[in-house]
Amino acid sequence: MTRDYSDEKMTLRLLKHAQFQGFNKWFGIELLGAGNGQVEVEVAVRPELTQHHGYVHGGCVSSLADTAAAWAAATAAKTDVVTSNFTFHFLAPAKGSHIRAHARTLKCGRRQATVEVQVFVRLEDGSEKLCGAGIATIAVLGKLAA
Amino acid sequence: MTRDYSDEKMTLRLLKHAQFQGFNKWFGIELLGAGNGQVEVEVAVRPELTQHHGYVHGGCVSSLADTAAAWAAATAAKTDVVTSNFTFHFLAPAKGSHIRAHARTLKCGRRQATVEVQVFVRLEDGSEKLCGAGIATIAVLGKLAA
Amino acid sequence: MTRDYSDEKMTLRLLKHAQFQGFNKWFGIELLGAGNGQVEVEVAVRPELTQHHGYVHGGCVSSLADTAAAWAAATAAKTDVVTSNFTFHFLAPAKGSHIRAHARTLKCGRRQATVEVQVFVRLEDGSEKLCGAGIATIAVLGKLAA
Amino acid sequence: MTRDYSDEKMTLRLLKHAQFQGFNKWFGIELLGAGNGQVEVEVAVRPELTQHHGYVHGGCVSSLADTAAAWAAATAAKTDVVTSNFTFHFLAPAKGSHIRAHARTLKCGRRQATVEVQVFVRLEDGSEKLCGAGIATIAVLGKLAA
Repeated sequence: MTRDYSDEKMTLRLLKHAQFQGFNKWFGIELLGAGNGQVEVEVAVRPELTQHHGYVHGGCVSSLADTAAAWAAATAAKTDVVTSNFTFHFLAPAKGSHIRAHARTLKCGRRQATVEVQVFVRLEDGSEKLCGAGIATIAVLGKLAA
Repeated sequence: MTRDYSDEKMTLRLLKHAQFQGFNKWFGIELLGAGNGQVEVEVAVRPELTQHHGYVHGGCVSSLADTAAAWAAATAAKTDVVTSNFTFHFLAPAKGSHIRAHARTLKCGRRQATVEVQVFVRLEDGSEKLCGAGIATIAVLGKLAA
Repeated sequence: MTRDYSDEKMTLRLLKHAQFQGFNKWFGIELLGAGNGQVEVEVAVRPELTQHHGYVHGGCVSSLADTAAAWAAATAAKTDVVTSNFTFHFLAPAKGSHIRAHARTLKCGRRQATVEVQVFVRLEDGSEKLCGAGIATIAVLGKLAA
Repeated sequence: MTRDYSDEKMTLRLLKHAQFQGFNKWFGIELLGAGNGQVEVEVAVRPELTQHHGYVHGGCVSSLADTAAAWAAATAAKTDVVTSNFTFHFLAPAKGSHIRAHARTLKCGRRQATVEVQVFVRLEDGSEKLCGAGIATIAVLGKLAA
Protein backbone atom coordinates (compact mmCIF):
# COMPACT_ATOMS: atom_id res chain seq x y z
CA MET A 1 0.00 0.00 0.00
CA THR A 2 1.42 3.36 -1.02
CA ARG A 3 1.28 5.84 1.79
CA ASP A 4 1.32 9.48 0.81
CA TYR A 5 1.01 11.68 3.83
CA SER A 6 1.94 14.90 2.12
CA ASP A 7 -1.37 16.63 2.76
CA GLU A 8 -0.08 18.98 5.44
CA LYS A 9 -3.10 21.24 5.38
CA MET A 10 -5.57 18.48 6.24
CA THR A 11 -3.22 17.13 8.87
CA LEU A 12 -3.11 20.53 10.53
CA ARG A 13 -6.88 20.83 10.32
CA LEU A 14 -7.38 17.46 11.98
CA LEU A 15 -4.88 18.39 14.65
CA LYS A 16 -6.70 21.64 15.30
CA HIS A 17 -10.30 20.53 15.17
CA ALA A 18 -10.47 16.97 16.31
CA GLN A 19 -7.40 15.72 18.07
CA PHE A 20 -7.52 17.93 21.15
CA GLN A 21 -11.23 17.95 21.96
CA GLY A 22 -13.42 16.02 24.38
CA PHE A 23 -13.09 12.28 24.10
CA ASN A 24 -10.17 12.38 21.68
CA LYS A 25 -8.18 14.52 24.10
CA TRP A 26 -8.80 12.11 26.97
CA PHE A 27 -8.16 9.15 24.68
CA GLY A 28 -4.80 10.59 23.71
CA ILE A 29 -4.95 9.98 19.97
CA GLU A 30 -1.70 10.82 18.22
CA LEU A 31 -1.90 11.54 14.52
CA LEU A 32 0.99 9.77 12.81
CA GLY A 33 0.11 10.83 9.29
CA ALA A 34 -2.76 11.88 7.06
CA GLY A 35 -3.26 12.41 3.36
CA ASN A 36 -4.46 10.83 0.17
CA GLY A 37 -7.50 9.27 1.84
CA GLN A 38 -5.39 7.52 4.44
CA VAL A 39 -4.74 8.14 8.10
CA GLU A 40 -2.61 6.50 10.76
CA VAL A 41 -3.28 7.18 14.42
CA GLU A 42 -1.90 5.72 17.62
CA VAL A 43 -2.75 5.58 21.29
CA ALA A 44 -0.46 4.65 24.18
CA VAL A 45 -2.12 2.01 26.35
CA ARG A 46 -2.80 2.95 29.98
CA PRO A 47 -4.94 1.28 32.67
CA GLU A 48 -8.06 3.36 31.98
CA LEU A 49 -8.19 1.87 28.46
CA THR A 50 -8.31 -1.75 29.57
CA GLN A 51 -10.99 -4.32 30.37
CA HIS A 52 -11.25 -7.13 32.91
CA HIS A 53 -8.63 -9.32 31.23
CA GLY A 54 -6.09 -6.50 31.12
CA TYR A 55 -6.35 -6.05 27.34
CA VAL A 56 -7.33 -2.78 25.71
CA HIS A 57 -11.13 -2.52 25.98
CA GLY A 58 -12.90 -3.36 22.75
CA GLY A 59 -14.65 -0.03 22.90
CA CYS A 60 -11.27 1.70 22.81
CA VAL A 61 -9.93 -0.44 19.98
CA SER A 62 -13.03 0.22 17.89
CA SER A 63 -13.11 3.90 18.84
CA LEU A 64 -9.60 4.27 17.48
CA ALA A 65 -10.66 2.45 14.32
CA ASP A 66 -13.76 4.62 13.97
CA THR A 67 -11.77 7.82 14.43
CA ALA A 68 -9.14 6.73 11.93
CA ALA A 69 -11.85 5.90 9.41
CA ALA A 70 -13.55 9.25 9.82
CA TRP A 71 -10.31 11.17 9.54
CA ALA A 72 -9.28 9.18 6.48
CA ALA A 73 -12.56 10.12 4.83
CA ALA A 74 -11.99 13.74 5.83
CA THR A 75 -8.64 13.78 4.03
CA ALA A 76 -10.37 12.42 0.92
CA ALA A 77 -13.50 14.57 1.06
CA LYS A 78 -11.75 17.67 2.40
CA THR A 79 -14.89 18.59 4.35
CA ASP A 80 -16.31 17.84 7.77
CA VAL A 81 -17.56 14.28 8.18
CA VAL A 82 -19.35 12.04 10.69
CA THR A 83 -19.46 8.27 10.93
CA SER A 84 -22.67 6.82 9.55
CA ASN A 85 -22.03 3.18 10.44
CA PHE A 86 -19.16 0.84 11.02
CA THR A 87 -18.41 -2.83 11.50
CA PHE A 88 -15.46 -4.06 13.48
CA HIS A 89 -14.07 -7.56 13.94
CA PHE A 90 -11.78 -8.31 16.87
CA LEU A 91 -8.99 -10.64 15.78
CA ALA A 92 -6.65 -10.92 18.77
CA PRO A 93 -6.44 -9.56 22.30
CA ALA A 94 -4.97 -6.05 22.29
CA LYS A 95 -2.27 -6.61 24.87
CA GLY A 96 0.70 -4.34 24.39
CA SER A 97 2.10 -0.85 24.77
CA HIS A 98 0.32 0.91 21.90
CA ILE A 99 -2.53 0.39 19.47
CA ARG A 100 -2.26 1.83 15.98
CA ALA A 101 -5.01 2.17 13.39
CA HIS A 102 -4.45 2.49 9.66
CA ALA A 103 -7.49 3.60 7.66
CA ARG A 104 -7.70 3.66 3.89
CA THR A 105 -10.52 5.19 1.85
CA LEU A 106 -11.90 2.70 -0.67
CA LYS A 107 -14.24 5.18 -2.29
CA CYS A 108 -15.18 8.76 -1.59
CA GLY A 109 -18.32 10.09 -3.23
CA ARG A 110 -20.22 13.33 -2.90
CA ARG A 111 -22.40 12.08 -0.03
CA GLN A 112 -20.39 9.36 1.66
CA ALA A 113 -17.08 7.57 1.82
CA THR A 114 -16.33 3.92 2.49
CA VAL A 115 -13.19 3.26 4.46
CA GLU A 116 -11.42 0.09 5.53
CA VAL A 117 -9.35 0.08 8.68
CA GLN A 118 -6.99 -2.25 10.47
CA VAL A 119 -5.78 -1.98 14.06
CA PHE A 120 -2.42 -3.33 15.26
CA VAL A 121 -1.14 -3.79 18.79
CA ARG A 122 2.55 -3.18 19.50
CA LEU A 123 3.99 -5.99 21.57
CA GLU A 124 6.69 -5.79 24.20
CA ASP A 125 9.39 -6.69 21.68
CA GLY A 126 8.36 -3.84 19.40
CA SER A 127 6.71 -6.02 16.78
CA GLU A 128 3.12 -5.44 15.76
CA LYS A 129 0.18 -7.83 15.54
CA LEU A 130 -3.12 -7.33 13.71
CA CYS A 131 -5.80 -7.20 16.41
CA GLY A 132 -8.85 -5.99 14.51
CA ALA A 133 -10.27 -4.97 11.15
CA GLY A 134 -13.34 -3.18 10.00
CA ILE A 135 -15.17 -1.17 7.40
CA ALA A 136 -17.07 2.08 7.80
CA THR A 137 -19.40 4.39 5.96
CA ILE A 138 -18.58 8.01 6.67
CA ALA A 139 -21.13 10.71 5.82
CA VAL A 140 -19.62 13.63 3.91
CA LEU A 141 -21.18 16.81 5.30
CA GLY A 142 -20.06 19.02 2.46
CA LYS A 143 -18.65 21.80 4.58
CA LEU A 144 -15.61 22.35 6.76
CA ALA A 145 -15.78 22.25 10.54
CA ALA A 146 -15.81 25.75 12.03
CA MET B 1 -40.48 -6.59 24.55
CA THR B 2 -40.76 -8.31 27.92
CA ARG B 3 -38.06 -7.25 30.31
CA ASP B 4 -37.24 -9.67 33.06
CA TYR B 5 -34.37 -8.45 35.15
CA SER B 6 -34.75 -10.93 37.94
CA ASP B 7 -31.33 -12.51 37.47
CA GLU B 8 -29.75 -10.96 40.54
CA LYS B 9 -26.77 -13.28 40.58
CA MET B 10 -25.62 -12.32 37.08
CA THR B 11 -26.26 -8.67 37.83
CA LEU B 12 -24.00 -8.88 40.85
CA ARG B 13 -21.35 -10.69 38.84
CA LEU B 14 -21.36 -8.01 36.16
CA LEU B 15 -21.16 -5.35 38.83
CA LYS B 16 -18.20 -7.06 40.43
CA HIS B 17 -16.18 -8.07 37.39
CA ALA B 18 -16.83 -5.57 34.70
CA GLN B 19 -18.45 -2.40 35.84
CA PHE B 20 -15.69 -1.05 38.06
CA GLN B 21 -12.60 -1.88 36.04
CA GLY B 22 -10.39 0.07 33.66
CA PHE B 23 -12.29 1.73 30.83
CA ASN B 24 -15.72 0.92 32.21
CA LYS B 25 -14.88 2.64 35.49
CA TRP B 26 -13.70 5.78 33.69
CA PHE B 27 -16.66 5.60 31.32
CA GLY B 28 -19.04 5.51 34.29
CA ILE B 29 -21.37 2.76 33.08
CA GLU B 30 -24.35 2.26 35.36
CA LEU B 31 -26.10 -1.09 35.16
CA LEU B 32 -29.85 -0.47 35.17
CA GLY B 33 -30.85 -4.11 34.90
CA ALA B 34 -29.72 -7.50 33.64
CA GLY B 35 -31.32 -10.87 33.15
CA ASN B 36 -32.98 -13.13 30.63
CA GLY B 37 -30.46 -12.30 27.92
CA GLN B 38 -31.13 -8.59 28.21
CA VAL B 39 -29.20 -5.70 29.70
CA GLU B 40 -29.79 -2.00 30.11
CA VAL B 41 -26.89 0.31 30.88
CA GLU B 42 -26.59 4.07 31.09
CA VAL B 43 -23.89 6.72 31.10
CA ALA B 44 -24.18 10.33 32.20
CA VAL B 45 -22.78 12.63 29.52
CA ARG B 46 -19.79 14.78 30.47
CA PRO B 47 -17.37 16.85 28.36
CA GLU B 48 -14.75 14.09 28.06
CA LEU B 49 -17.29 11.96 26.21
CA THR B 50 -18.01 14.48 23.46
CA GLN B 51 -16.66 15.23 19.98
CA HIS B 52 -16.09 18.44 18.04
CA HIS B 53 -19.81 19.18 17.55
CA GLY B 54 -20.56 18.79 21.28
CA TYR B 55 -22.40 15.47 20.81
CA VAL B 56 -21.36 12.27 22.55
CA HIS B 57 -18.41 10.87 20.58
CA GLY B 58 -19.41 8.01 18.30
CA GLY B 59 -16.76 5.86 19.93
CA CYS B 60 -18.49 6.33 23.29
CA VAL B 61 -21.95 5.62 21.90
CA SER B 62 -20.74 2.43 20.25
CA SER B 63 -18.66 1.43 23.27
CA LEU B 64 -21.80 1.58 25.40
CA ALA B 65 -23.63 -0.49 22.80
CA ASP B 66 -20.79 -3.01 22.64
CA THR B 67 -20.65 -3.33 26.42
CA ALA B 68 -24.40 -3.76 26.68
CA ALA B 69 -24.30 -6.45 24.00
CA ALA B 70 -21.51 -8.37 25.72
CA TRP B 71 -23.21 -8.18 29.10
CA ALA B 72 -26.53 -9.28 27.61
CA ALA B 73 -24.80 -12.32 26.15
CA ALA B 74 -23.18 -12.99 29.54
CA THR B 75 -26.59 -13.11 31.21
CA ALA B 76 -27.73 -15.63 28.59
CA ALA B 77 -24.56 -17.75 28.47
CA LYS B 78 -23.78 -17.44 32.17
CA THR B 79 -20.06 -17.57 31.38
CA ASP B 80 -17.37 -15.06 30.55
CA VAL B 81 -17.65 -13.58 27.06
CA VAL B 82 -15.80 -11.28 24.66
CA THR B 83 -17.08 -9.37 21.66
CA SER B 84 -16.20 -11.06 18.40
CA ASN B 85 -17.58 -8.41 16.05
CA PHE B 86 -20.19 -5.71 15.96
CA THR B 87 -21.89 -3.35 13.58
CA PHE B 88 -23.29 -0.04 14.68
CA HIS B 89 -25.40 2.51 12.79
CA PHE B 90 -25.59 6.08 14.04
CA LEU B 91 -29.13 7.41 13.65
CA ALA B 92 -29.14 10.81 15.32
CA PRO B 93 -26.68 13.07 17.13
CA ALA B 94 -26.35 12.01 20.77
CA LYS B 95 -26.94 15.41 22.33
CA GLY B 96 -28.44 15.15 25.81
CA SER B 97 -27.82 14.38 29.44
CA HIS B 98 -27.55 10.58 29.30
CA ILE B 99 -27.16 7.77 26.80
CA ARG B 100 -28.84 4.45 27.52
CA ALA B 101 -28.29 1.13 25.72
CA HIS B 102 -30.73 -1.74 25.67
CA ALA B 103 -29.32 -5.04 24.42
CA ARG B 104 -31.35 -8.15 23.70
CA THR B 105 -29.93 -11.58 22.91
CA LEU B 106 -31.42 -12.96 19.69
CA LYS B 107 -29.73 -16.33 20.01
CA CYS B 108 -27.24 -17.81 22.42
CA GLY B 109 -25.48 -21.00 21.37
CA ARG B 110 -22.63 -22.96 22.84
CA ARG B 111 -19.93 -20.98 21.08
CA GLN B 112 -21.42 -17.57 20.39
CA ALA B 113 -24.39 -15.32 20.96
CA THR B 114 -25.97 -12.79 18.61
CA VAL B 115 -27.29 -9.67 20.27
CA GLU B 116 -29.17 -6.64 18.97
CA VAL B 117 -28.79 -3.33 20.70
CA GLN B 118 -30.34 0.11 20.56
CA VAL B 119 -28.98 3.30 22.09
CA PHE B 120 -31.17 6.21 23.20
CA VAL B 121 -30.19 9.73 24.18
CA ARG B 122 -32.15 11.47 26.95
CA LEU B 123 -33.06 15.00 25.92
CA GLU B 124 -33.35 18.05 28.13
CA ASP B 125 -37.10 17.53 28.56
CA GLY B 126 -36.57 13.98 29.82
CA SER B 127 -37.82 12.28 26.69
CA GLU B 128 -35.63 9.77 24.86
CA LYS B 129 -34.63 9.54 21.22
CA LEU B 130 -33.18 6.56 19.36
CA CYS B 131 -29.65 7.57 18.36
CA GLY B 132 -28.14 4.29 17.21
CA ALA B 133 -28.70 0.61 16.60
CA GLY B 134 -26.49 -2.38 16.03
CA ILE B 135 -25.94 -6.07 16.10
CA ALA B 136 -23.07 -8.02 17.64
CA THR B 137 -21.57 -11.47 17.79
CA ILE B 138 -20.30 -12.28 21.25
CA ALA B 139 -17.93 -15.21 21.75
CA VAL B 140 -18.95 -17.49 24.62
CA LEU B 141 -15.76 -18.47 26.46
CA GLY B 142 -17.36 -21.29 28.40
CA LYS B 143 -15.98 -20.35 31.79
CA LEU B 144 -16.61 -17.65 34.35
CA ALA B 145 -14.32 -14.67 34.79
CA ALA B 146 -12.01 -15.15 37.76
CA MET C 1 -44.67 -4.38 16.56
CA THR C 2 -47.63 -2.69 14.90
CA ARG C 3 -47.95 -3.66 11.29
CA ASP C 4 -49.79 -1.26 9.06
CA TYR C 5 -49.79 -2.45 5.50
CA SER C 6 -52.38 -0.01 4.23
CA ASP C 7 -50.06 1.72 1.76
CA GLU C 8 -51.60 0.18 -1.32
CA LYS C 9 -49.96 2.59 -3.74
CA MET C 10 -46.44 1.73 -2.67
CA THR C 11 -47.29 -1.96 -2.64
CA LEU C 12 -48.45 -1.72 -6.23
CA ARG C 13 -45.34 0.22 -7.21
CA LEU C 14 -43.08 -2.41 -5.67
CA LEU C 15 -45.03 -5.11 -7.43
CA LYS C 16 -44.67 -3.33 -10.74
CA HIS C 17 -41.08 -2.18 -10.62
CA ALA C 18 -39.18 -4.65 -8.54
CA GLN C 19 -40.93 -7.92 -7.96
CA PHE C 20 -41.06 -9.20 -11.50
CA GLN C 21 -37.66 -8.23 -12.83
CA GLY C 22 -34.38 -10.07 -13.28
CA PHE C 23 -33.11 -11.75 -10.14
CA ASN C 24 -36.27 -11.07 -8.11
CA LYS C 25 -38.37 -12.81 -10.75
CA TRP C 26 -36.12 -15.86 -10.71
CA PHE C 27 -35.90 -15.75 -6.92
CA GLY C 28 -39.70 -15.80 -6.70
CA ILE C 29 -40.15 -13.12 -4.07
CA GLU C 30 -43.76 -12.78 -2.95
CA LEU C 31 -44.72 -9.49 -1.34
CA LEU C 32 -46.89 -10.25 1.70
CA GLY C 33 -47.37 -6.65 2.75
CA ALA C 34 -45.82 -3.19 2.62
CA GLY C 35 -46.46 0.12 4.27
CA ASN C 36 -45.47 2.39 7.10
CA GLY C 37 -41.77 1.69 6.61
CA GLN C 38 -42.25 -2.05 6.92
CA VAL C 39 -42.25 -4.89 4.42
CA GLU C 40 -42.79 -8.62 4.61
CA VAL C 41 -41.66 -10.85 1.76
CA GLU C 42 -41.51 -14.58 1.32
CA VAL C 43 -39.88 -17.12 -0.94
CA ALA C 44 -40.80 -20.78 -1.40
CA VAL C 45 -37.73 -22.97 -1.04
CA ARG C 46 -36.70 -25.04 -4.05
CA PRO C 47 -33.51 -26.97 -4.86
CA GLU C 48 -31.85 -24.13 -6.77
CA LEU C 49 -31.87 -22.03 -3.58
CA THR C 50 -29.95 -24.53 -1.46
CA GLN C 51 -26.32 -25.18 -0.55
CA HIS C 52 -24.30 -28.32 0.08
CA HIS C 53 -26.03 -29.18 3.38
CA GLY C 54 -29.50 -28.89 1.84
CA TYR C 55 -30.31 -25.65 3.64
CA VAL C 56 -31.25 -22.44 1.85
CA HIS C 57 -27.98 -20.90 0.64
CA GLY C 58 -26.81 -18.02 2.81
CA GLY C 59 -26.68 -15.81 -0.25
CA CYS C 60 -30.40 -16.42 -0.79
CA VAL C 61 -31.30 -15.80 2.84
CA SER C 62 -29.36 -12.55 2.88
CA SER C 63 -30.66 -11.54 -0.56
CA LEU C 64 -34.20 -11.83 0.77
CA ALA C 65 -33.21 -9.77 3.82
CA ASP C 66 -31.53 -7.15 1.63
CA THR C 67 -34.53 -6.89 -0.67
CA ALA C 68 -36.94 -6.61 2.25
CA ALA C 69 -34.80 -3.86 3.77
CA ALA C 70 -34.65 -1.89 0.52
CA TRP C 71 -38.39 -2.20 -0.06
CA ALA C 72 -39.13 -1.20 3.54
CA ALA C 73 -37.05 1.94 3.02
CA ALA C 74 -38.89 2.60 -0.25
CA THR C 75 -42.23 2.57 1.55
CA ALA C 76 -40.85 5.09 4.04
CA ALA C 77 -39.00 7.32 1.58
CA LYS C 78 -41.56 6.97 -1.20
CA THR C 79 -38.77 7.24 -3.77
CA ASP C 80 -36.44 4.88 -5.54
CA VAL C 81 -33.71 3.44 -3.32
CA VAL C 82 -30.60 1.25 -3.47
CA THR C 83 -28.82 -0.64 -0.71
CA SER C 84 -25.72 1.14 0.49
CA ASN C 85 -24.50 -1.52 2.94
CA PHE C 86 -25.84 -4.30 5.05
CA THR C 87 -24.81 -6.68 7.78
CA PHE C 88 -26.39 -10.07 8.23
CA HIS C 89 -25.99 -12.65 10.99
CA PHE C 90 -27.01 -16.25 10.36
CA LEU C 91 -28.68 -17.68 13.46
CA ALA C 92 -29.93 -21.13 12.43
CA PRO C 93 -29.88 -23.33 9.33
CA ALA C 94 -32.69 -22.32 6.96
CA LYS C 95 -34.18 -25.76 6.47
CA GLY C 96 -37.89 -25.61 5.67
CA SER C 97 -40.52 -24.89 3.08
CA HIS C 98 -40.38 -21.07 3.02
CA ILE C 99 -38.22 -18.22 4.19
CA ARG C 100 -39.90 -14.96 5.20
CA ALA C 101 -38.24 -11.62 5.87
CA HIS C 102 -39.71 -8.82 7.93
CA ALA C 103 -38.00 -5.46 7.58
CA ARG C 104 -38.71 -2.42 9.70
CA THR C 105 -37.36 1.08 9.07
CA LEU C 106 -35.65 2.48 12.18
CA LYS C 107 -35.06 5.89 10.67
CA CYS C 108 -35.62 7.41 7.26
CA GLY C 109 -33.85 10.66 6.49
CA ARG C 110 -33.50 12.72 3.36
CA ARG C 111 -30.40 10.88 2.15
CA GLN C 112 -30.60 7.43 3.70
CA ALA C 113 -32.70 5.05 5.75
CA THR C 114 -31.59 2.52 8.35
CA VAL C 115 -33.61 -0.67 8.41
CA GLU C 116 -33.54 -3.74 10.64
CA VAL C 117 -34.61 -7.08 9.26
CA GLN C 118 -35.27 -10.57 10.54
CA VAL C 119 -35.62 -13.74 8.49
CA PHE C 120 -37.68 -16.74 9.58
CA VAL C 121 -37.79 -20.23 8.15
CA ARG C 122 -41.11 -22.09 8.10
CA LEU C 123 -40.67 -25.62 9.38
CA GLU C 124 -42.52 -28.75 8.29
CA ASP C 125 -45.06 -28.36 11.10
CA GLY C 126 -45.92 -24.83 9.99
CA SER C 127 -44.14 -23.10 12.86
CA GLU C 128 -41.49 -20.49 12.19
CA LYS C 129 -37.95 -20.15 13.49
CA LEU C 130 -35.71 -17.09 13.45
CA CYS C 131 -32.82 -17.95 11.14
CA GLY C 132 -31.10 -14.60 10.62
CA ALA C 133 -31.07 -10.93 11.51
CA GLY C 134 -29.43 -7.87 10.09
CA ILE C 135 -29.30 -4.15 9.66
CA ALA C 136 -28.96 -2.13 6.47
CA THR C 137 -28.33 1.37 5.24
CA ILE C 138 -30.45 2.15 2.20
CA ALA C 139 -29.59 5.15 0.03
CA VAL C 140 -32.60 7.33 -0.77
CA LEU C 141 -32.30 8.40 -4.40
CA GLY C 142 -34.90 11.13 -4.19
CA LYS C 143 -36.84 10.14 -7.28
CA LEU C 144 -39.20 7.40 -8.30
CA ALA C 145 -38.12 4.52 -10.49
CA ALA C 146 -39.27 5.03 -14.07
CA MET D 1 -0.90 -9.07 -2.16
CA THR D 2 0.84 -12.35 -2.91
CA ARG D 3 -1.47 -14.85 -4.49
CA ASP D 4 -0.53 -18.44 -4.02
CA TYR D 5 -3.09 -20.72 -5.55
CA SER D 6 -1.06 -23.87 -5.37
CA ASP D 7 -3.44 -25.73 -3.06
CA GLU D 8 -4.80 -28.05 -5.70
CA LYS D 9 -6.40 -30.45 -3.26
CA MET D 10 -8.60 -27.81 -1.68
CA THR D 11 -9.43 -26.41 -5.10
CA LEU D 12 -10.63 -29.81 -6.21
CA ARG D 13 -12.62 -30.24 -3.02
CA LEU D 14 -14.37 -26.92 -3.52
CA LEU D 15 -15.08 -27.81 -7.10
CA LYS D 16 -16.57 -31.12 -6.06
CA HIS D 17 -18.57 -30.13 -3.03
CA ALA D 18 -19.69 -26.59 -3.47
CA GLN D 19 -19.40 -25.30 -6.99
CA PHE D 20 -21.89 -27.57 -8.70
CA GLN D 21 -24.71 -27.72 -6.15
CA GLY D 22 -28.00 -25.92 -5.72
CA PHE D 23 -27.72 -22.16 -5.79
CA ASN D 24 -24.04 -22.11 -6.76
CA LYS D 25 -24.79 -24.24 -9.83
CA TRP D 26 -27.58 -21.91 -10.93
CA PHE D 27 -25.48 -18.87 -10.07
CA GLY D 28 -22.67 -20.17 -12.28
CA ILE D 29 -19.74 -19.52 -9.99
CA GLU D 30 -16.40 -20.22 -11.63
CA LEU D 31 -13.48 -20.87 -9.32
CA LEU D 32 -10.46 -18.97 -10.66
CA GLY D 33 -8.08 -20.03 -7.91
CA ALA D 34 -7.88 -21.10 -4.31
CA GLY D 35 -5.14 -21.58 -1.75
CA ASN D 36 -3.28 -19.97 1.09
CA GLY D 37 -6.45 -18.57 2.65
CA GLN D 38 -7.42 -16.80 -0.56
CA VAL D 39 -10.01 -17.45 -3.23
CA GLU D 40 -11.00 -15.79 -6.47
CA VAL D 41 -14.36 -16.57 -8.05
CA GLU D 42 -16.20 -15.12 -11.02
CA VAL D 43 -19.69 -15.07 -12.46
CA ALA D 44 -20.74 -14.11 -15.97
CA VAL D 45 -23.57 -11.57 -15.85
CA ARG D 46 -26.89 -12.60 -17.42
CA PRO D 47 -30.37 -11.06 -17.20
CA GLU D 48 -31.54 -13.23 -14.29
CA LEU D 49 -28.82 -11.69 -12.12
CA THR D 50 -29.92 -8.08 -12.59
CA GLN D 51 -32.21 -5.62 -10.84
CA HIS D 52 -34.53 -2.87 -12.05
CA HIS D 53 -31.72 -0.54 -13.18
CA GLY D 54 -30.03 -3.29 -15.23
CA TYR D 55 -27.11 -3.69 -12.82
CA VAL D 56 -26.24 -6.97 -11.14
CA HIS D 57 -28.66 -7.36 -8.21
CA GLY D 58 -27.08 -6.51 -4.87
CA GLY D 59 -28.10 -9.90 -3.58
CA CYS D 60 -26.01 -11.53 -6.32
CA VAL D 61 -23.00 -9.29 -5.73
CA SER D 62 -23.06 -10.01 -2.01
CA SER D 63 -23.75 -13.72 -2.55
CA LEU D 64 -20.60 -13.94 -4.64
CA ALA D 65 -18.70 -12.10 -1.90
CA ASP D 66 -20.13 -14.37 0.79
CA THR D 67 -19.24 -17.49 -1.16
CA ALA D 68 -15.72 -16.27 -1.84
CA ALA D 69 -15.26 -15.49 1.85
CA ALA D 70 -16.47 -18.92 2.95
CA TRP D 71 -14.30 -20.71 0.41
CA ALA D 72 -11.27 -18.63 1.39
CA ALA D 73 -11.80 -19.66 5.00
CA ALA D 74 -12.15 -23.28 3.89
CA THR D 75 -8.74 -23.16 2.21
CA ALA D 76 -7.25 -21.82 5.44
CA ALA D 77 -9.12 -24.08 7.87
CA LYS D 78 -9.08 -27.14 5.62
CA THR D 79 -12.46 -28.18 7.05
CA ASP D 80 -16.09 -27.55 6.22
CA VAL D 81 -17.27 -24.03 7.07
CA VAL D 82 -20.43 -21.91 7.12
CA THR D 83 -20.82 -18.14 7.14
CA SER D 84 -21.60 -16.80 10.58
CA ASN D 85 -22.09 -13.15 9.60
CA PHE D 86 -21.00 -10.71 6.96
CA THR D 87 -21.07 -7.04 6.16
CA PHE D 88 -21.04 -5.74 2.62
CA HIS D 89 -20.73 -2.20 1.27
CA PHE D 90 -21.80 -1.43 -2.29
CA LEU D 91 -19.38 1.02 -3.87
CA ALA D 92 -20.47 1.31 -7.50
CA PRO D 93 -23.18 -0.11 -9.74
CA ALA D 94 -22.19 -3.55 -11.00
CA LYS D 95 -22.77 -2.93 -14.69
CA GLY D 96 -20.58 -5.10 -16.88
CA SER D 97 -19.95 -8.53 -18.30
CA HIS D 98 -18.58 -10.30 -15.21
CA ILE D 99 -18.27 -9.85 -11.49
CA ARG D 100 -15.21 -11.22 -9.71
CA ALA D 101 -14.67 -11.59 -5.97
CA HIS D 102 -11.31 -11.84 -4.28
CA ALA D 103 -11.40 -12.99 -0.65
CA ARG D 104 -8.45 -13.01 1.72
CA THR D 105 -8.37 -14.60 5.17
CA LEU D 106 -7.22 -12.10 7.80
CA LYS D 107 -7.16 -14.64 10.61
CA CYS D 108 -8.14 -18.28 10.90
CA GLY D 109 -8.56 -19.69 14.38
CA ARG D 110 -9.83 -22.98 15.68
CA ARG D 111 -13.46 -21.86 15.82
CA GLN D 112 -13.78 -19.11 13.25
CA ALA D 113 -12.05 -17.21 10.48
CA THR D 114 -12.30 -13.55 9.56
CA VAL D 115 -12.11 -12.81 5.86
CA GLU D 116 -12.08 -9.60 3.84
CA VAL D 117 -13.45 -9.57 0.34
CA GLN D 118 -13.61 -7.20 -2.59
CA VAL D 119 -15.83 -7.48 -5.66
CA PHE D 120 -14.92 -6.04 -9.05
CA VAL D 121 -17.06 -5.60 -12.15
CA ARG D 122 -15.48 -6.08 -15.57
CA LEU D 123 -16.44 -3.26 -17.90
CA GLU D 124 -17.01 -3.43 -21.64
CA ASP D 125 -13.42 -2.35 -22.34
CA GLY D 126 -12.04 -5.21 -20.23
CA SER D 127 -10.96 -3.04 -17.33
CA GLU D 128 -12.21 -3.75 -13.81
CA LYS D 129 -13.80 -1.46 -11.25
CA LEU D 130 -14.18 -2.04 -7.51
CA CYS D 131 -17.93 -2.32 -6.90
CA GLY D 132 -18.11 -3.60 -3.33
CA ALA D 133 -16.16 -4.60 -0.25
CA GLY D 134 -16.94 -6.48 2.89
CA ILE D 135 -15.80 -8.50 5.84
CA ALA D 136 -17.11 -11.82 7.10
CA THR D 137 -16.89 -14.18 10.03
CA ILE D 138 -16.85 -17.79 8.89
CA ALA D 139 -17.54 -20.56 11.41
CA VAL D 140 -15.02 -23.39 11.23
CA LEU D 141 -16.94 -26.65 11.62
CA GLY D 142 -13.90 -28.78 12.32
CA LYS D 143 -14.72 -31.54 9.87
CA LEU D 144 -14.70 -32.01 6.13
CA ALA D 145 -17.88 -31.98 4.06
CA ALA D 146 -18.97 -35.49 3.14
